[in-house]
Amino acid sequence: MITPRTLKGFRDYLPEVMIPRESAMQTARTVFRRYGFCPIDTPALEHLDVLTGKGSDETDRQLYRFVDNGGRDVGMRFDLTVPLARFVAQHIGKLGTPFKRYHLAPVWRGENTQAGRYREFMQCDFDCVGTQSVASDIETLLIIHDLMTSLGFERFKIHINNRQVLTGLLERLDLVEQTLPVLRSLDKLPKIGVEKTAAEMCSAAGVTPDQAEQVLKLAACEGTPEEILAQLPAVIGDSETAVAGIERLQQLFAGAAAAGVPAERLKLDVSIARGLDYYTGVIFETFLDDLPKIGSVCSGGRYDNLVSTYSKQSLPGVGASLGLDRLLAAMEQLKILPAVRTTAPVFIAYFDGDRLDAYLRLAATVRAAGIGAELYPEPKRLGQQLKYADSRGFRIALIAGGTELAEGRCQVKDLQAKSAEDVAYTPEQPEQLIQAIKRMLAS
Amino acid sequence: MITPRTLKGFRDYLPEVMIPRESAMQTARTVFRRYGFCPIDTPALEHLDVLTGKGSDETDRQLYRFVDNGGRDVGMRFDLTVPLARFVAQHIGKLGTPFKRYHLAPVWRGENTQAGRYREFMQCDFDCVGTQSVASDIETLLIIHDLMTSLGFERFKIHINNRQVLTGLLERLDLVEQTLPVLRSLDKLPKIGVEKTAAEMCSAAGVTPDQAEQVLKLAACEGTPEEILAQLPAVIGDSETAVAGIERLQQLFAGAAAAGVPAERLKLDVSIARGLDYYTGVIFETFLDDLPKIGSVCSGGRYDNLVSTYSKQSLPGVGASLGLDRLLAAMEQLKILPAVRTTAPVFIAYFDGDRLDAYLRLAATVRAAGIGAELYPEPKRLGQQLKYADSRGFRIALIAGGTELAEGRCQVKDLQAKSAEDVAYTPEQPEQLIQAIKRMLAS
Repeated sequence: MITPRTLKGFRDYLPEVMIPRESAMQTARTVFRRYGFCPIDTPALEHLDVLTGKGSDETDRQLYRFVDNGGRDVGMRFDLTVPLARFVAQHIGKLGTPFKRYHLAPVWRGENTQAGRYREFMQCDFDCVGTQSVASDIETLLIIHDLMTSLGFERFKIHINNRQVLTGLLERLDLVEQTLPVLRSLDKLPKIGVEKTAAEMCSAAGVTPDQAEQVLKLAACEGTPEEILAQLPAVIGDSETAVAGIERLQQLFAGAAAAGVPAERLKLDVSIARGLDYYTGVIFETFLDDLPKIGSVCSGGRYDNLVSTYSKQSLPGVGASLGLDRLLAAMEQLKILPAVRTTAPVFIAYFDGDRLDAYLRLAATVRAAGIGAELYPEPKRLGQQLKYADSRGFRIALIAGGTELAEGRCQVKDLQAKSAEDVAYTPEQPEQLIQAIKRMLAS
Repeated sequence: MITPRTLKGFRDYLPEVMIPRESAMQTARTVFRRYGFCPIDTPALEHLDVLTGKGSDETDRQLYRFVDNGGRDVGMRFDLTVPLARFVAQHIGKLGTPFKRYHLAPVWRGENTQAGRYREFMQCDFDCVGTQSVASDIETLLIIHDLMTSLGFERFKIHINNRQVLTGLLERLDLVEQTLPVLRSLDKLPKIGVEKTAAEMCSAAGVTPDQAEQVLKLAACEGTPEEILAQLPAVIGDSETAVAGIERLQQLFAGAAAAGVPAERLKLDVSIARGLDYYTGVIFETFLDDLPKIGSVCSGGRYDNLVSTYSKQSLPGVGASLGLDRLLAAMEQLKILPAVRTTAPVFIAYFDGDRLDAYLRLAATVRAAGIGAELYPEPKRLGQQLKYADSRGFRIALIAGGTELAEGRCQVKDLQAKSAEDVAYTPEQPEQLIQAIKRMLAS
């Protein structure tokens, strides 16, 4: 006998968790498709050299890698961005540009397990490859906003920045070489405050106190996007890169307003650097007003060259990744997750053991009207069947014994309101029953 | 520079293949939910001892296995049935019975690659666990039928048998010990014919010529289900097991008829044994009338005890597996696969470079009406944009330059009919435009 168990850091999804998860994934697909993004899929396993050295030392260390039966070094994908780069480099001639794809698939990382972190999780990415147009930056923002509202969130903020603003400032301060350590220090600002950040910038990045002050002056810009955009030129000076970044930010906020995104859901945050050397243009992070501590639930941005390790072609792109499992945990915490344990609203009791055919016909009739229906498989006691129906969360139970069936009747029971009505029903004339079910479902 | 490539036996799914694949998966989910089946998910990786020895020597040999960074022996799942058994044994107290689940997920097998066979493929399973009722056998059949018609197939046959009929015959002939070699020979009947099958049965299974003749007499029963069911008692004799099997087959055909399954789509085929020692009751195989050679596209049956290796509890079940990738290949061959390369029907040309906001507003308006719309990201030449729209297969293009926008007009172009009309449009009064798009999409 083998003990049934999952691997450490892995989890099973039972129906009560998988039903809302599947529904959220379907919502995401619907949003992506609304903007003309197309689905793709790539293998879980890749040649090891395709995966290593593409993320960070950490992702290399966390990689699930092995030698397959054919002696090949292989690895399980740790994100969907590296496979996208490989995919685009391999197929771009056939795909054409702009290439807009979404990809929902599991990824694997051998992380140290901690609360809410798993070694297998669902990634939900979308990217537009092959254009540098600000229209794609704006579209990315619109999709993030649409994803959040379509999933049922109202109180959230999308933080926006453009890496060119920071890059421009560092150019002017002659700190381009120290970009990485400067940004790494800057990322700690929300946690350790201005003074400690300035000190660390001097010690770790080797900048002067004056330079640190100027970098931190940028991060201190606050207010509405218009106010910040008005302050920036004074902080940045005449850096061409920064001016271009400021202009793109202006276009981004104007475009979002034109497409109807409420201004209060957007925040210009010139201190976020996200991903350090990865992003080159706009950057997005999304925070829930009611659960800011869980971190960004949808992040992304623009990168200059996706495929540089696989191809000489230059392909810019912009996109983002939805933290699906994190969002589902948040929905549960905020109690906006519907507690459904069934996928069909109607339960049909198998009441009279000799009339299975009649119940099968009844179930087929309800389903033909576009309403999901589950028929209990055994003619057990009605009380036991209704207990099952209650525990699964069905909305409606249809109950008919031999007498009712013979007399052309069926009881329609609202399992939530605990009310019931008797309705005329024969297989030839099911209309009244279907109407009664629809009425009850709509109430 | 690393050459972008996939592993041997693995494949990328480009949008033109992934769009219909995703749509078929969604159709399958819709069908499963219509019968009250719930989604679950399990990890791609399992403890090695959970996976080995559960399938065949072949699946053991094909297993992707390795030692993870924590020194654990792990394997990638090769089907969804073994993980279901582990899952049910682990969670049955919480799940309760009947437990009806569906599971769509990739599985991995290091098979020798050949035409159309991949080392990673999508499984699409549904099972009802915890009841022996014939109502569940019937429901399994209904779902197979519903899956096939919902996916667009009309010409197919579901072959049905019940292993109890064969088992009963073998009991009467005192051949229970030789069940496996007898069935293995019987499985070759369609390929090598009666005489050679009889000869092999004698040599490989050690049965007498008379016993072989009686087994083959069973396989020779032909006609409508009623005709075969009438012939069977004479062939089988008075085996209790066989009589029970015959009765369940009668109930199955009666139930299918009651639920409205056309009789011509069902075939009672008492020679199919499928899976040898795995199934214990009803067996299903589904063949396309127009492509019989691709083999069964949806197969399954009833098994006595799913969880025996993980738990002492006895849990019978019945279910089937849809061969999604095989069916998609068939749909392509039969030309019933829609050639769509876009997920949104409407293309919006970015015509006047200074009016991005107006196009963003237009796109938002179309999407708010529930119609997917893609905005071209760059103000390139109109000809180039329309060429892109054509190549992607959009249905409709919206074209408006600065003049049209100023005058409150927009051109609606039917890219398939090559016709166009000018429609009044302003962001404040978009109704006429939306109506024109809906009309064109419906035509």
